[in-house]
Amino acid sequence: MKTADPELMRAINRYLVIDVIRRHGPIARVEIVERTELSRATISAITGGLIDEGLIHVRHFDAAEGGNDAASRGRPRVMLELNGVAYRVVGVKLSLHRISIAVTDFRGDVLRDLVIPVRIARQTPEVVADLVEDGVRQGVADAGLTMADISGVGIGLPGVIDGVAGVSHESPVLGLSPVPFADFMRQRLGVPVLLENDANLVALAEHWFGHARDRDSFVVVTVEDTIGMGLFIDGKLYRGAHGVGAELGHVKMRLDGPLCRCGQPGCLDTLASDAGVIEAARNAGYLATDDRRQSSELIASLLSRARSGEAGPAALFRTAGEALGLAIANVLNMLNPPLIIISGEGLRAGTLLTEPLLAVLDRLSLPALRAATEVIFHPWGDESWARGAATIVLRRIYETPLNASPT
Amino acid sequence: MKTADPELMRAINRYLVIDVIRRHGPIARVEIVERTELSRATISAITGGLIDEGLIHVRHFDAAEGGNDAASRGRPRVMLELNGVAYRVVGVKLSLHRISIAVTDFRGDVLRDLVIPVRIARQTPEVVADLVEDGVRQGVADAGLTMADISGVGIGLPGVIDGVAGVSHESPVLGLSPVPFADFMRQRLGVPVLLENDANLVALAEHWFGHARDRDSFVVVTVEDTIGMGLFIDGKLYRGAHGVGAELGHVKMRLDGPLCRCGQPGCLDTLASDAGVIEAARNAGYLATDDRRQSSELIASLLSRARSGEAGPAALFRTAGEALGLAIANVLNMLNPPLIIISGEGLRAGTLLTEPLLAVLDRLSLPALRAATEVIFHPWGDESWARGAATIVLRRIYETPLNASPT
Repeated sequence: MKTADPELMRAINRYLVIDVIRRHGPIARVEIVERTELSRATISAITGGLIDEGLIHVRHFDAAEGGNDAASRGRPRVMLELNGVAYRVVGVKLSLHRISIAVTDFRGDVLRDLVIPVRIARQTPEVVADLVEDGVRQGVADAGLTMADISGVGIGLPGVIDGVAGVSHESPVLGLSPVPFADFMRQRLGVPVLLENDANLVALAEHWFGHARDRDSFVVVTVEDTIGMGLFIDGKLYRGAHGVGAELGHVKMRLDGPLCRCGQPGCLDTLASDAGVIEAARNAGYLATDDRRQSSELIASLLSRARSGEAGPAALFRTAGEALGLAIANVLNMLNPPLIIISGEGLRAGTLLTEPLLAVLDRLSLPALRAATEVIFHPWGDESWARGAATIVLRRIYETPLNASPT
Repeated sequence: MKTADPELMRAINRYLVIDVIRRHGPIARVEIVERTELSRATISAITGGLIDEGLIHVRHFDAAEGGNDAASRGRPRVMLELNGVAYRVVGVKLSLHRISIAVTDFRGDVLRDLVIPVRIARQTPEVVADLVEDGVRQGVADAGLTMADISGVGIGLPGVIDGVAGVSHESPVLGLSPVPFADFMRQRLGVPVLLENDANLVALAEHWFGHARDRDSFVVVTVEDTIGMGLFIDGKLYRGAHGVGAELGHVKMRLDGPLCRCGQPGCLDTLASDAGVIEAARNAGYLATDDRRQSSELIASLLSRARSGEAGPAALFRTAGEALGLAIANVLNMLNPPLIIISGEGLRAGTLLTEPLLAVLDRLSLPALRAATEVIFHPWGDESWARGAATIVLRRIYETPLNASPT
């Protein structure tokens, strides 16, 4: 049973204040009062505490810098901003063919990043954990820090991931058996580790520093080796019965469609994911079945043939775009979210994918609902992914009084 | 921006206390403390206030009645319960072929109910409003009350209903143009009126007194003249961008499927709703196109033919059940809710509908997710519907400090 006790109230207010300072800092106390609608006394108490803890610090602006309203003219203004060095964290993104790592400060600004090219799915989870450990230690050293400076590590990966328990139930990178990967990494690194499905991670990061900064409800769809979905409602990531959250890859599109890795027919993954496109290309003879290149190279070669006018490879991306358009139309017809962000490496196909996607989406979503839903394409680089992974740890630190320990 | 100020905190705590007393009363203060995890001082202050307001009252139990633990033995126990006469409200359900009305007390217990047989869709919204007014006034009089005793009226109906603004955007009973039906009724009855999509209403009522009493997250699917969906997350009804909430009827099942009322192809409504089954029966020649009977009679006649062994009519219900099974499998694959409640008049088809539904649902939902989701069939009588409509007003009264006026 949920309660609203004074301690929880203070924790929520503290989170609000830190978040406003992060988004809008340097910011004057009076503006924090306006934006949070909390009382001046509450804001003074909370900001005083945050200064004492070293999480924020004060900057004095001259009148010329600090604004020119009558009240402030002629005397310096006191502004508050996050203290970047208060905490450092690490974000890691596991993809099929690389490990991306970013070390960030308390503001989420990237101090150092690196990419390790490795086909993860060919290695055991223990080997992957060893490689992630080596990469994290290297990134931290490159940033001039030691592991003792690091407050936590956030790891994003595709698949059915229980973000609460830190377990990968089924993932194209860690395999089909349950792997307690957060535990693996905590043992190796000695710091708290959070695991998260990569679409959920994008949703958290879009809310933190992306297109959903001022939005409390939105949907993210990621097009990668699998199709992912993240659902934010009232400022909170939707978790579902398993801690897994929303998923889109195993929604059934065509019962006469190809058999999916999951053993069921016609899943969206088989029609629209990178893995699905490659499988279809193999079946159609556009790729040799023994081509050992990694999936991103295979997709790149199909794309270059499609762009140079080959109808067959172009049709693969059109089919993927149409399947995505229908699946997203159904998300829109079912949940009517105010914002849908489409992201992921799959967007490298550009208009070959997005034009049929939008055409089907517009044709098959109810006009009144479609008009109320903004649809944005937002391709992410490796650095954004890793930075997003770092923000899941920062977010937890902001909430610390809500969750005594960030593990 | 959301804040957690002391006033909101008090309102939330007050709601929690009333709700615990409603669900578990008569109940001792010490048990309220246990169930809410609020302090003894807070519970004393809130229950004292509720007694002063007349919302709850005290009952004294003898030791024999009141339990036999050592502490209470030999002296009377003080128990708290809702004061049923504190508020009276009216619930109304608009169906294609009837208006159901229930007058309830503050506990949601039905004082009086009545059903008006009328094919609503043949009348203008103004005429429907007049008929609802007449029915409500009759029900209130039959209960020995006057309109001055009534604190509000809740109205449930199928379609795209903005429950926040009280507007029917598109409904099989009020038509395809926007109708500010809550305003219509407020003008006629002089009391606050709440309008709600009927699937949302079932979700609210299941949470209030049905199968979801102790569940904060669940999905309701209603099978009626249209297919409806209600989504509860973290104890709150999901609203979406339009105030409409979740919908299932216009999810596209087969792009080569029949054209829907909405103008788009293959909507679930065309395959699985009462209207869809009747249309398919007409196209297949099982019903004459000029048969003037109301839809429930047409469905009853198809059912009786299916049960007496006619393959064609039986196939209609199997098709409907399979389409529902696939749509619900996709809800499960996407949202992984811990509980799905399937309700509505469509369940009168019994195993003709539910067997193919469950077969497809089990075959096409991911086994790990399916295992975590409970699926319940819960047919509702007219009285339950109307009582459900009443609870949306009671719920608002419970929250009154959160929403100064229940309009």
